[in-house]
Amino acid sequence: MMQVGIIMGSQSDLPIMQEAADFLSEMQIPYELTIVSAHRTPERMFEYAKTAYQRGLRVIIAGAGGAAHLPGMVASLTALPVIGVPIKSSNSIDGWDSVLSILQMPAGVPVATVALNGAKNAGILATEILATSDEKIYQKLITFKESLKEKIHKQIESLKG
Amino acid sequence: MMQVGIIMGSQSDLPIMQEAADFLSEMQIPYELTIVSAHRTPERMFEYAKTAYQRGLRVIIAGAGGAAHLPGMVASLTALPVIGVPIKSSNSIDGWDSVLSILQMPAGVPVATVALNGAKNAGILATEILATSDEKIYQKLITFKESLKEKIHKQIESLKG
Amino acid sequence: MMQVGIIMGSQSDLPIMQEAADFLSEMQIPYELTIVSAHRTPERMFEYAKTAYQRGLRVIIAGAGGAAHLPGMVASLTALPVIGVPIKSSNSIDGWDSVLSILQMPAGVPVATVALNGAKNAGILATEILATSDEKIYQKLITFKESLKEKIHKQIESLKG
Amino acid sequence: MMQVGIIMGSQSDLPIMQEAADFLSEMQIPYELTIVSAHRTPERMFEYAKTAYQRGLRVIIAGAGGAAHLPGMVASLTALPVIGVPIKSSNSIDGWDSVLSILQMPAGVPVATVALNGAKNAGILATEILATSDEKIYQKLITFKESLKEKIHKQIESLKG
Amino acid sequence: MMQVGIIMGSQSDLPIMQEAADFLSEMQIPYELTIVSAHRTPERMFEYAKTAYQRGLRVIIAGAGGAAHLPGMVASLTALPVIGVPIKSSNSIDGWDSVLSILQMPAGVPVATVALNGAKNAGILATEILATSDEKIYQKLITFKESLKEKIHKQIESLKG
Amino acid sequence: MMQVGIIMGSQSDLPIMQEAADFLSEMQIPYELTIVSAHRTPERMFEYAKTAYQRGLRVIIAGAGGAAHLPGMVASLTALPVIGVPIKSSNSIDGWDSVLSILQMPAGVPVATVALNGAKNAGILATEILATSDEKIYQKLITFKESLKEKIHKQIESLKG
Amino acid sequence: MMQVGIIMGSQSDLPIMQEAADFLSEMQIPYELTIVSAHRTPERMFEYAKTAYQRGLRVIIAGAGGAAHLPGMVASLTALPVIGVPIKSSNSIDGWDSVLSILQMPAGVPVATVALNGAKNAGILATEILATSDEKIYQKLITFKESLKEKIHKQIESLKG
Amino acid sequence: MMQVGIIMGSQSDLPIMQEAADFLSEMQIPYELTIVSAHRTPERMFEYAKTAYQRGLRVIIAGAGGAAHLPGMVASLTALPVIGVPIKSSNSIDGWDSVLSILQMPAGVPVATVALNGAKNAGILATEILATSDEKIYQKLITFKESLKEKIHKQIESLKG
Repeated sequence: MMQVGIIMGSQSDLPIMQEAADFLSEMQIPYELTIVSAHRTPERMFEYAKTAYQRGLRVIIAGAGGAAHLPGMVASLTALPVIGVPIKSSNSIDGWDSVLSILQMPAGVPVATVALNGAKNAGILATEILATSDEKIYQKLITFKESLKEKIHKQIESLKG
Repeated sequence: MMQVGIIMGSQSDLPIMQEAADFLSEMQIPYELTIVSAHRTPERMFEYAKTAYQRGLRVIIAGAGGAAHLPGMVASLTALPVIGVPIKSSNSIDGWDSVLSILQMPAGVPVATVALNGAKNAGILATEILATSDEKIYQKLITFKESLKEKIHKQIESLKG
Repeated sequence: MMQVGIIMGSQSDLPIMQEAADFLSEMQIPYELTIVSAHRTPERMFEYAKTAYQRGLRVIIAGAGGAAHLPGMVASLTALPVIGVPIKSSNSIDGWDSVLSILQMPAGVPVATVALNGAKNAGILATEILATSDEKIYQKLITFKESLKEKIHKQIESLKG
Repeated sequence: MMQVGIIMGSQSDLPIMQEAADFLSEMQIPYELTIVSAHRTPERMFEYAKTAYQRGLRVIIAGAGGAAHLPGMVASLTALPVIGVPIKSSNSIDGWDSVLSILQMPAGVPVATVALNGAKNAGILATEILATSDEKIYQKLITFKESLKEKIHKQIESLKG
Repeated sequence: MMQVGIIMGSQSDLPIMQEAADFLSEMQIPYELTIVSAHRTPERMFEYAKTAYQRGLRVIIAGAGGAAHLPGMVASLTALPVIGVPIKSSNSIDGWDSVLSILQMPAGVPVATVALNGAKNAGILATEILATSDEKIYQKLITFKESLKEKIHKQIESLKG
Repeated sequence: MMQVGIIMGSQSDLPIMQEAADFLSEMQIPYELTIVSAHRTPERMFEYAKTAYQRGLRVIIAGAGGAAHLPGMVASLTALPVIGVPIKSSNSIDGWDSVLSILQMPAGVPVATVALNGAKNAGILATEILATSDEKIYQKLITFKESLKEKIHKQIESLKG
Repeated sequence: MMQVGIIMGSQSDLPIMQEAADFLSEMQIPYELTIVSAHRTPERMFEYAKTAYQRGLRVIIAGAGGAAHLPGMVASLTALPVIGVPIKSSNSIDGWDSVLSILQMPAGVPVATVALNGAKNAGILATEILATSDEKIYQKLITFKESLKEKIHKQIESLKG
Repeated sequence: MMQVGIIMGSQSDLPIMQEAADFLSEMQIPYELTIVSAHRTPERMFEYAKTAYQRGLRVIIAGAGGAAHLPGMVASLTALPVIGVPIKSSNSIDGWDSVLSILQMPAGVPVATVALNGAKNAGILATEILATSDEKIYQKLITFKESLKEKIHKQIESLKG
């Protein structure tokens, strides 16, 4: 059963959002990935969000650009944690529009917002959430964190070169 | 039959949004005014937008603050013109969040955005839209425009002392 | 008789503004398209705006960049609905200048502002306005909205691969 | 055993951060609340973050203003999900500093950022995270979400007068 | 004959714009002050700008807030130097709207923009412009500049106190 | 005798500032053009500004990028009108730094600021200033303004095809 | 002999800048404090900066608001380290103008910029600089740093109540 | 013994940070340069900052992009002066995130912030700090400052052609 749902407003968001999927694959966490547009397929968005819990999803990652309503609307339709990824799309005003549309949710309906184009971090955050009740996943995260250090230490060595 | 629907995300938006209603009253255009929250009553929002045309509405004015999704989501659910009023709410980041969340809609789903807290202008714009097919309303608008001039001319006179 | 007037401040705005024209063509709505510069041909702008209603226009779409005064000035000279398209021109400060110059109109004189470079949405909004009194155009919009969904569904299928 | 740790950089952040605590109380989720300053008590921050998992915490909520390093640094020191609350402090540049310092984390170290001063949403998000493995908490959230609707419906009724 | 024309979009701008008038009075430069609204009295604006040179004006100071089109439009209608004063009005987005609407004029039509609410500096700049061909006014400016120094020197003394 | 002094902080500003010079050449106004750096040659800047009036200059155009102090410092050292040109240099924060460093001068010391990279407008503004006491230059400006219109009219014709 | 010079553009900056002086007093570091306006007393600024080293100063702290040129200009006139304090003055655009005018100095002429209104930190930074060659001052800083921790620990205790 | 420590969050910051190193080399000031990531190697950062003074360092230059916590965290762990270099990294929001994360430190913990990507200025500032107690270094700085002037004078000559 899929544990994480990755959705995005348009196929053009895929190169960014793929990084979330890649991290989940690396962690061996089953996920689904599809397109759900708040503005062009609002009924589909309703259906997706309303059935997410029953279908077994435990976290939803939603990416969108511009006036990015997908993460917040999904959060209004489910009690699952929703992670929002602001995407710097072509006609965006430097990304500010997607950041503020996702971040500034009213009291009652949170979206866990990550950095602009930060889909990899969305994948990590989803993993951290699942790890709160799964010791094995938690250990994988610890290993992943160690690998970050190792990369830096390799850079340090190459600099000494 | 109501021609204009005025909706807002929260009762706290009423002092601003009332200005739209007041202008429509002045123009004798029948309107309805109610609260529809994108994030707290998403089903109600769907219902409201989906039935708006059949219920006789011809323009929808939607006001919201922060991550303001109401105008854009309503626009995605109806083919009526939707006028968006960004509202500078208490925890807003200087109003930028509501402006960008309403304005920066993707291609395919426009929202006619007016100035921050510009509910009166939303009422005027709705009237202009109805006036495109109603000569009487158009004449009222012409009279209103004259009144703007007169106010300025009174200010000019008072300045001359 | 032309129903929509599309104007822009400079020939360099044409690649963007053409998208409004293309949508109107698709909807078979007669329009005219020309250049009217607020700052270089102010008399022409006055003439254009003052005669627009009599010439049969019912909506005006005005695009401009930088200190973009064309949409607001035209709105001050006519009672027709004016749709403003902020354009990100070469020396623009990231588009903020055109967005704010068009959006932040004073009470009494609205401009229906769309997203930065959002000329297609301006065309759709003009169509929505005309559709408030024309059932045939309304049906075309419904069909157009369906086509947006279909495009997303094709993307979904292609993703499933 | 405490499940959620609420920390903040200074006592002056308490009026905001209390809203997270209040929501957790309402949901009967055990939490601890204390002051941990990234810049004035860095060793304490290290200790707090490093021992959080072993002490039983499953989510950390960290609030800070200005150059807000607490949420991100804690996230670098633990594999638990960290929720960041940007706080608009007195010498803040309109809150932009705390928002960007918390949100824009590099790949590898996510912070789940909520709206400016959005501590209540941080409490809800923490609850959603715990609910991913606790059906009872999930049901409480569903009930909470219903209460949001009811509040809106009461506003609707009061508007009808 | 009046040498400087001070205009503003609304009576509410008077407390700010009065500072320009006061400086000109101090310099004994004849000026006129009135209200000319780009958006509410566009014909009056045309008339004012078109006749300014013939009426003897040599500099125009124009103040406006929000989508501030008055300075730029007047500059498009006259070859006189136009000084623009951005005013931080009530629904302004922190003054950015008026600053950018006045400053970012296209090539061909300059507006000499001064600081937000900087009407006194507009008066000084107008005086500097007239002083380019009037030795007496130039001497007065030199005296004024000396007075600025003296004020600072008095502050220095009081600090030593 | 030179009437206009064009100065800039660095040779890299020349491609932009040349546009001011070109306009003055077109208007047959004698000008000088050189490099004066506020931060690298402060004594030269003092000398330049202090002697400008005696050397016959009547207007100074100063261009600079980043923390752009040249226009404001020159304005503090002379009673001549100083026109400031904000330049979007390589490490600029989108031009905001140079715009604000030039525009936001304190009461007493105005800088006539033009648009970002708006050196041509600086040249036109200098000409307008000189034209306040020179009928011939004024007539040239009128002719120039006509030429702007003609260019637009040619664009209109080319659009008609 | 004075080791630190604290200067500010205007007496109105004193309430902020006093915090720098107070910290230096606490550390028993001799300082002088006076008003030096870049724009109103440029000759005094030259004199002050040019003689600073000879008079024994080793660090200069300069505070200014708006188009804040004082710190950068002083830095151009001395080889001493200059600490800049951006001040949020009354007509400032939210403090952005002073921050950017001080921070964005060109290569060759650094200003050590501290937070908006951060005069206390300027005092601490000046002390840190002097401590690089004075073991006693360094020990005082260590003691000061400990006192920061103690304050937080007292807050922690008071929270435990 | 090394006097200056140059650290950066990632190898990708090296092209920028190298400019600081190059300046110190030119001034014959011994320095060390390495990678220390606040978020990926927090323990290393602690160790580095805590031992810096004992190892003989007298100034630390820290560069970082995005949510740039390295300079501020190092400043919280040492009493040495810390110079922060905001770096405009790839997913940065135009550099604002790194500027504000470094600049807006709370009272008690200053970071001497230089311009965006201003690593050369960081090197100069470090030299100025060391020069406060080293007459030889001070003379080198005076010579460097003269060289800046000479470069400008060469540009002036080349312009004269």
